[in-house]
Parts: sequence; structure tokens; C-alpha cells
Amino acid sequence: MKRTLMISAMALAACTLATAQVKEDFKPASTNQQGKQYPMVNSERVVRAQVTAPDAKYVQFDIGGVKYDLVKDENGVWTGDTAPQDEGFHYYQIWVDGAATPDPNSLYYYGASRWGSGIDIPAHDEDFYAVKNVPHGDVREVYYYSKTNDAMRHCFIYTPASYDTDLTKRYPVLYLQHGGGENEYGWAVQGKTGLIMDNLIAAGLAEEFIIVMDNGTWSMPRPAAGAAPQARPQAPQGQRPQAPQGGQRPQGGGPMGMPSGWADGFMNTLVNDIIPMVDAKYRTIADREHRAMAGLSMGAMQTKSITMAKPEVFSKIGLFSGGTISVDEANSTPGFREAYDLVFVSFGSRETENPRGGVDPGKITADLKASGMNAHYYVSPETAHEWQTWRRSLYQFAQLLFK
Amino acid sequence: MKRTLMISAMALAACTLATAQVKEDFKPASTNQQGKQYPMVNSERVVRAQVTAPDAKYVQFDIGGVKYDLVKDENGVWTGDTAPQDEGFHYYQIWVDGAATPDPNSLYYYGASRWGSGIDIPAHDEDFYAVKNVPHGDVREVYYYSKTNDAMRHCFIYTPASYDTDLTKRYPVLYLQHGGGENEYGWAVQGKTGLIMDNLIAAGLAEEFIIVMDNGTWSMPRPAAGAAPQARPQAPQGQRPQAPQGGQRPQGGGPMGMPSGWADGFMNTLVNDIIPMVDAKYRTIADREHRAMAGLSMGAMQTKSITMAKPEVFSKIGLFSGGTISVDEANSTPGFREAYDLVFVSFGSRETENPRGGVDPGKITADLKASGMNAHYYVSPETAHEWQTWRRSLYQFAQLLFK
Repeated sequence: MKRTLMISAMALAACTLATAQVKEDFKPASTNQQGKQYPMVNSERVVRAQVTAPDAKYVQFDIGGVKYDLVKDENGVWTGDTAPQDEGFHYYQIWVDGAATPDPNSLYYYGASRWGSGIDIPAHDEDFYAVKNVPHGDVREVYYYSKTNDAMRHCFIYTPASYDTDLTKRYPVLYLQHGGGENEYGWAVQGKTGLIMDNLIAAGLAEEFIIVMDNGTWSMPRPAAGAAPQARPQAPQGQRPQAPQGGQRPQGGGPMGMPSGWADGFMNTLVNDIIPMVDAKYRTIADREHRAMAGLSMGAMQTKSITMAKPEVFSKIGLFSGGTISVDEANSTPGFREAYDLVFVSFGSRETENPRGGVDPGKITADLKASGMNAHYYVSPETAHEWQTWRRSLYQFAQLLFK
Repeated sequence: MKRTLMISAMALAACTLATAQVKEDFKPASTNQQGKQYPMVNSERVVRAQVTAPDAKYVQFDIGGVKYDLVKDENGVWTGDTAPQDEGFHYYQIWVDGAATPDPNSLYYYGASRWGSGIDIPAHDEDFYAVKNVPHGDVREVYYYSKTNDAMRHCFIYTPASYDTDLTKRYPVLYLQHGGGENEYGWAVQGKTGLIMDNLIAAGLAEEFIIVMDNGTWSMPRPAAGAAPQARPQAPQGQRPQAPQGGQRPQGGGPMGMPSGWADGFMNTLVNDIIPMVDAKYRTIADREHRAMAGLSMGAMQTKSITMAKPEVFSKIGLFSGGTISVDEANSTPGFREAYDLVFVSFGSRETENPRGGVDPGKITADLKASGMNAHYYVSPETAHEWQTWRRSLYQFAQLLFK
């Protein structure tokens, strides 16, 4: 009896403590739909969610691999708090009696292989991707025909502010790839590529260049003979790229959910269709010295595979949360050392705390630098394999490009 | 007993008949997320929805003002059919035990004052907005500063395919507005403006012009003194425009959900900020002869109000599902007859079947034409106050513009 009472008293104390600890300075998330108050975030990065579901038995808020039970009030409104989240952008979803749905309060993003909810937790450095009164470039939605895929494809292309006013200027190009389970919307929307570049250029911290954000995992099936090529504007439903028929195989293991042919299938489309389209339609400087490739996670592995296979096409490399280039790899890849004048490697700090296989990407990159290559290493503080790591990586990488 | 049996037999017959009547030629909707099979649509435009909700008591598919009860199978998967829907695009939602959520299977669109599910029912004339292997223009996402709102704003701008290759050419501009409860994404996404124009231009049916799609219902609150202007990239959360301080009041009644100040607040932003920004940044022909305004529903009423107040700014008018211009209005508006060389009025046939107040917009427009103005009237067959009406209206209107 005494023991039970003690436990109850302890539980009550813990509960009271927990309640007292939540700072009541919640504000609506910047990723909420217009006029929606929830989810909110407080200064300790706790998320408070709220969903109306009067007849539901249980409602959960599912973020960062944890399902938080919400509690129902007398009006059928379910509310609850999460543990503190990392700064930056996270995908999440709601569960209503076993149905996984988007939160009706949030904006929607493509990632984790679905369009669904996302939330941006305010970050101490969020100023670098804020919407400011500076000259803004355009993020263009572009359709084009691919011979490799015999289909129409869809990408986003950033052109800097000066592009539309200085018609004599030509620009270098960065090809920038999303990760597994994502698509061309990743960098254009939650990646905030246009805003990051506008702010960097306005501050005099980066050169002006074009950025091409394409879909690295999709190519359309061949249409029937005589049929017009078709595409799905927002979410192409075609088959994955075919397995490689030869050429460079990816180095190292791939992340979860990576489709077969992820590097070679996209390499052919990139080199034979995308780059020629971009060089024909836009005022690029169409040579390898003015062409870079970077990507995150699966996109980093595609970048490594493609740039190692195509030193005649690219001269700068960015690998965000998706591998390194070792001295041995640089030495054993024909033309690599001569071709590349910039290798940038980055990770979130939570990724490097528990490196797979005990490999230290910082040491590998330092060794590459010591061997004579222009190698840079960046670790995003207190972020994981998520978009805040990649926003910061682009911010760092862009300052090194085409200078 | 006999009667009960008869009724049962009849009910069984009706049930069997109903089942037999549903054509089993369902295909995934074009508006589904990548890889998602449901919702499907058959050749009779019946929608078959499916949602996984193992612990739910009831699940409903809510489209066209009707909630269809789905039926649960042994795996907790709920399925059901709707009545036949009209051709074209419709907003819809799912109800799970009283929670209104987006369908996790669909893509998401802004309308009905929320981001949520939409479905495109195949249309007999859908070829005019298909993705084809023709030269494509770009739909650009643009941020700009508004003095009127003292804030950053966000719009979409279509530039035709030739814009980026023929750098000496200048273009007329159409300012194209969404309806109530919608925003600048309406014409750019579900409106399929870029695809409609690309196909028209490739077929030689329309002149090339720029199209500006802005947000007609939103302006940001003034920030505190010294604070940097900020904007919400995807779903601005600012206050509605202020009530008009004078100037032209809207003619006629407004649609449901129309905010106060919807015409005058936006007119100031349009004339003082948006048009100067567009004429400065893009290669426009910056005179009234080469400037048109059109809109749907609330956007049509804004168009009427703004063009009647500003004959020195515009020369062509398109009103889609949002009013007419009568002979009396044309005669009593100073400068109107001299300024405008095109007035286009359109509706969906289901709107004109039961015209409000017994007014016949076709007769009003025919009278305007008989009075000497270049007036055109179009009725979209078998569509209501929805996007297929407006896609078709743009398709018709664009063929008359700047010729």
C-alpha cells in the first residue's frame, strides 16, 4: 500500500513537473495553412498539435518516428505536445483510428515517398532562408522532352534576379538533386533554394548561377507507338529508371528505399537530355568549368557516381549526407584529380555522431584535402538526416562555387 | 409475408441492377499521388474511393456537396462509389470518424479556403490541357515587394516558350485572377494555364503573351517599424485587404466568402505595384493596348470593377463565371467604350440553367455586342462553377487576345 502510494505520488510529481516545464509561448508554425493556428511550436521546439475528430477512438501525431497520443476534450478536439524537435523541417502525419492522413492544418510536401504534412521548427539561423526585400530570382516550372525516356519530364530551374534584366550575361549551372523518396519539389519548396540564393547573392556572398532541380528517380515508360508522350504534372507515375546497361556503378552502399538504376538511369537522362535542354534554352556558360553537381543522400550518391563517370562534363562536386570521396577513389578514377577543382562534403551532426561502419567522413575529406584537392567539410549543428542539414549545406556550398 | 418477400425481391433486384450498372473500367485518377491506385474513375465518371482505416467506425468520401459512405472489408479497408461526376476538376475531402482530412492518396490543391484533395475527372476535350511534346513556356514563382502592402508578395508568371530564346521580342500581358477561397496557385496548378497556352501557341491558335497570376484576396499587415518585411511563401497568413477608402465599388453582388475590400484593396496593389514590377522585370509591351485583365468568380468581379475604374490601364476584359457588362454599364462608365476592344463573358452551363434573379448573361452580352462593342459569350457544356469551366474559358478567351 505504501509502495503504491509512493509510486502514485512520484507519478503525480513527474506529471506536474512535465506540465510545468512546457513553456506556454506557442506560436503557429510557419508551415501551417492560411489562418490555421495549429500545430504550434514553443521556444523549446515542442510541437502542440490539435485535430478535430469528434467520433474518433484515438488520434496520434506522428513525427520523428514517435506517435504522440492526443487527448480529447468535450468538443471532440484532440490536443497534445511532442518532445522537443530539432530545428528545421520535418515530415509528419496524423493517425485517426488507424487511418494515416495528412494533418488538415498543414501545408503539404513531397517526401518519405508521399505528399503529406511538414512542419518547420524555427531555427536560430533561419534568417538565411527568410523572404526578404532583396532582388529575387525566379523558380521556374519547366516541361521538356527526354529522348532517353521518350517522355515529357518536369523540373524546376532557378534563375537569379539579374537574369531577366541583364540580357547579355551568361551563367554557370548547378545541377542539384533531392534524396530517396523525394522528387524535384524537394529543393524548390522545402529546400528553399531560391530564397537561400537570393539572400546570398544580395549579401555579396555567392556568385550568380542557375540551379536545375530535376527528378532523379523517375522516368516515364515508353508510350505505345504513335501515341503522344504524356506526363503527370505533379507526381509522375511512370516506372523507375531501368537497371543500368553498363557504365559506372555507384560506389558504396545505397540508402534505404533507393530504386534500382538510380545512378545510371538518371545519368543518361541528365547528360543526354537535361544538360542539352538547359544549355539550349537558358543563357548558360556551357562548359565543364562552369558546371557543378550536388545532391543530398541518394542524390549525393548519384552525384558521386555521375561526376566520377563524367569528368568531361562537371568540375565541382557537392555531397550532402550521402558519402565521401577518398584519396584512393580520387586516385583510381581516371581524370578525376585533373577535372575537379572543388569537392564539398557535409553531414548533420546527428549523422556523424554514429557513423556507419565507424567511418569518419571528416577524416576522409581532410585526407583528400591533404592529398592536394580543394576539399571542404561541413557539419550542420544539431540536425539529422533532414532538410535543415541540406539547407545549410547549400548555403555553405554555394559560397564556394564558381569563384 | 408476401408483401415483404416482394419488397425484398425488388430490393435485391435493384441492388443487383445497381451493381451491374457500374462499369468496371476504373482507372487511377490523374490527380493521384505517384503509385496510388485510388481514387479511380470509370468511363461513366463514377469515382471509386478507398481508404485504410482499420479502427474507424465510419469513413466518408465528400465530393460535390454529398458525403458517400464507404464500406469496410475484413482488412480495415473502406471502399465505395460516388454518383457520376461532371468532367474536370473537383475539390473533395475524406471524413474519418468525424475528422475532415485530405485523402492521403491524392495530390493537394488550394481552394474552398484550404489546401486539400482534388480529383480530375477525364474530360472529352482534355487534350487542350494535356502535357504534349511541344515548345513549353515556364511558369515562374516570383517574390516581389509591394509598397501598397509594405510587404513581400508572391505570384506566378507564365512566359511563353520563345521568351527565353528570342531576346529581342516584347510581349503583351494578361493579368489573370482566381476566385474566392482560392489563391495564386489556382490558375498555375489546377487551372493548367501554362499547358493551355503552350498547346494553343504550338497549334497557332493564340498569340504569345505573358500571364500574371497573383493573389487577389491577400495583403500582408504592416510590419513593426524597422522590421524586415516578411511573407509566407506558400500560404500567406496576413490580414485581408483593408476596406476601400474610396474609389470604384464593385458592381453587383459578390459571391459567398468574398472578403471586404476585395476589389479596391487589390486594385491598388495591382496598379501601383504588380504592373510596374512586371513591366520592369519582364520584356512586356507596357501600354494599355497590350494589357488585359480576366478572372473567375470573385476574380471576374474584381476584373470588372478594376477595368471599369482604370480604362487608362487595360483594353481587354474577360469575365468567367462572375458577371456581365450591360449596355447601360458600358454607357455610364466614362471612357469605357473607347478603351475596351474586347469583352469576353463565360459561364458553365449548369450555372446558366438556373441564373440568379432571372438574368440571362447571354442576352446581356448579345445586347452589348449589338450596341457596337466587341463582346463574346461562351458557355462551357455540362460544367458548373468549377475549374473545367474556367480552363475552357481561358482556352476560348486566349484565342481572342492581342490579335
